[in-house]
Amino acid sequence: MRRSLPVSDSSAIVEEPRIHKGLAGVVVDTTAISKVNPETNSLLYRGYPVQELAALCSFEQVAYLLWHGELPTEEQLAEFERVERAQRALPVAVRRIIDELPLTAHPMDVLRTAVSVIGASDPRASDDSPEAELEKAIGLYARIPAIVAYDQRRRHGDDVVEPRDDLGYSANFLHMTFGDVPELVVVDAFDVSMILYAEHSFNASTFTTRVITSTLADLYSAVVGGIGALKGPLHGGANEAVMHTFDEVGRADKAAAWLDTALAEKRKIMGFGHRVYKHGDSRVPTMKTSLDALLEHYDRPDLGALYDALETAMTARKNILPNLDYPSGPAYHLMGFDTETFTPLFVASRIVGWTAHIMEQRASNSLIRPLSAYSGHDERHVEG
Amino acid sequence: MRRSLPVSDSSAIVEEPRIHKGLAGVVVDTTAISKVNPETNSLLYRGYPVQELAALCSFEQVAYLLWHGELPTEEQLAEFERVERAQRALPVAVRRIIDELPLTAHPMDVLRTAVSVIGASDPRASDDSPEAELEKAIGLYARIPAIVAYDQRRRHGDDVVEPRDDLGYSANFLHMTFGDVPELVVVDAFDVSMILYAEHSFNASTFTTRVITSTLADLYSAVVGGIGALKGPLHGGANEAVMHTFDEVGRADKAAAWLDTALAEKRKIMGFGHRVYKHGDSRVPTMKTSLDALLEHYDRPDLGALYDALETAMTARKNILPNLDYPSGPAYHLMGFDTETFTPLFVASRIVGWTAHIMEQRASNSLIRPLSAYSGHDERHVEG
Repeated sequence: MRRSLPVSDSSAIVEEPRIHKGLAGVVVDTTAISKVNPETNSLLYRGYPVQELAALCSFEQVAYLLWHGELPTEEQLAEFERVERAQRALPVAVRRIIDELPLTAHPMDVLRTAVSVIGASDPRASDDSPEAELEKAIGLYARIPAIVAYDQRRRHGDDVVEPRDDLGYSANFLHMTFGDVPELVVVDAFDVSMILYAEHSFNASTFTTRVITSTLADLYSAVVGGIGALKGPLHGGANEAVMHTFDEVGRADKAAAWLDTALAEKRKIMGFGHRVYKHGDSRVPTMKTSLDALLEHYDRPDLGALYDALETAMTARKNILPNLDYPSGPAYHLMGFDTETFTPLFVASRIVGWTAHIMEQRASNSLIRPLSAYSGHDERHVEG
Repeated sequence: MRRSLPVSDSSAIVEEPRIHKGLAGVVVDTTAISKVNPETNSLLYRGYPVQELAALCSFEQVAYLLWHGELPTEEQLAEFERVERAQRALPVAVRRIIDELPLTAHPMDVLRTAVSVIGASDPRASDDSPEAELEKAIGLYARIPAIVAYDQRRRHGDDVVEPRDDLGYSANFLHMTFGDVPELVVVDAFDVSMILYAEHSFNASTFTTRVITSTLADLYSAVVGGIGALKGPLHGGANEAVMHTFDEVGRADKAAAWLDTALAEKRKIMGFGHRVYKHGDSRVPTMKTSLDALLEHYDRPDLGALYDALETAMTARKNILPNLDYPSGPAYHLMGFDTETFTPLFVASRIVGWTAHIMEQRASNSLIRPLSAYSGHDERHVEG
């Protein structure tokens, strides 16, 4: 294959190909699912500002929107909820396999394995018709909460809580995890976090699902890869890392000194900065409003003060602004989730965006296969 | 983030960003692991032509080379073999979990799940020191044959065959799959296939493992994603598809007519063509020599004639040449592997290349996070 190499005007010398490390600034494809505009600090899902969706819609409505391109009518929403609620129970084989995994396993590893098992057990796994793909996507969306809830409960020695089909997605998720339905302020904050995490264009995990899909592999294979990518602390693992930071700092009055030490040690401060947003993450104000409601509900002004102190110190020293993981970490903590469960919660939401992108990639596919520049040993020969 | 958009010389009109669909021709990073030169039709592993390695080295030596950058001394090879042979047995928990999966599951789904379980069960999963990464890579390299062999045997209702530590990698792999060690010509052909499949720069599955690693996720998460990508028929799934084609065509004298019909129906003919190679796949002549030896050993001139007839017809009509999957498919078939096991064999080999790339990515990491161009609905607002 002939690469178009940049050639200088006046000679025949071929320069080295330009290396796009990290693919920063490289546009890989078009998408109609979401628009991230870092200049105006806005994020649209299918044209709708995400703040409006968080204020006015349920996560179920947003999931429907991301998959279908339009918000559901009342009838469409009722049918969608019926299908979702009917699949909320944890499959027995998945439960047995989770029970085989040690408690030392990270919950993301458990979730990755469980989704792989669901894929291996689905006889339609390789049916890539749009109808089958959507059914599989809704099936994962419906079942992941049961996996996440079951895994947190087994780590506490608690019995499984069966789903309730009279509850919305978020209320049922909290019910399955904690055994009761918390007050509306908590359910609402959880629902807002699910809406905000659902989709964000070509982030590393979504891009992973598109690369895998581009080989025409099945939807489950792509999702399992997405879970792996989201686990990394430079991606979804950051909401977990934020909580570890809060634990380490301890108190608001220690934040500035802690940060000075951390920066001197060249540690990466999780929950701040974003590859795409440079003027602040569009989703932070909405999630911060929900966090403020939780801080008041749980009467935790100390955590609010710590949150503000670290943000203020970070902005003063580096002028790097918080991303969505910064308010969502303490919000999940207040709700009662274990810190290691935070990234699986991100999966529960992002499964919608991933599967929307998988379907979009399949509808207009080209194998994603870049090139590399060789920097290794010159040609040599085996002796003997 | 400010993208450098191409701006026309004479006006302030900003053009659309260039879209690199499929990342064709885009160089993402440097690598010292292998060099694919499509112009000269050559492939170097760490500087050595792959044909020479296939002729003069064992798969164990080549795996050591890809990981360490140099061929092993006799002492280094002995130590490497000792470590590999000690880990060949199928872990009990993995066996129990495979037994939970239905026989309708594709063997790639079983392998994906089994590797995910190994990762979830490894308390060092998140230890990303170079020593721990290499240990995990060798551990997977040693264990994948047991998973692949066990899964094929359970589908035939056969008992597990324990590994033998007095055999080399390929002889033991065949022993665990078939219950005996075949003649040298078969072991050699299998070993050659393992060497040829081991590494091929930034193909879609290797790129997947690098994208996942770039979030600082663990090695197992990256490998599980690689398995997912390799499953696709546009990638590793092609060796399986080649055998289905041979089954469908049936006889050499039907090849030309079959191909005319298939091309008229715009079907993709698997086993031919390559994104990077345009003048033929550098690995085909070596694998074809091994296939010829097998055709003679198993006395199957009919299959050889079918192979030649389809290649001749394809070259005459489309001038598209075979890739490695074309000779390897019938070679694995002759050895006795089920067609669905072919892609897992590709994994058994490519695990070496993937893990070498994972370690290289981690040593010089930058989050792989491209951009997309929005093609969706204009901004709109939620009613009510």
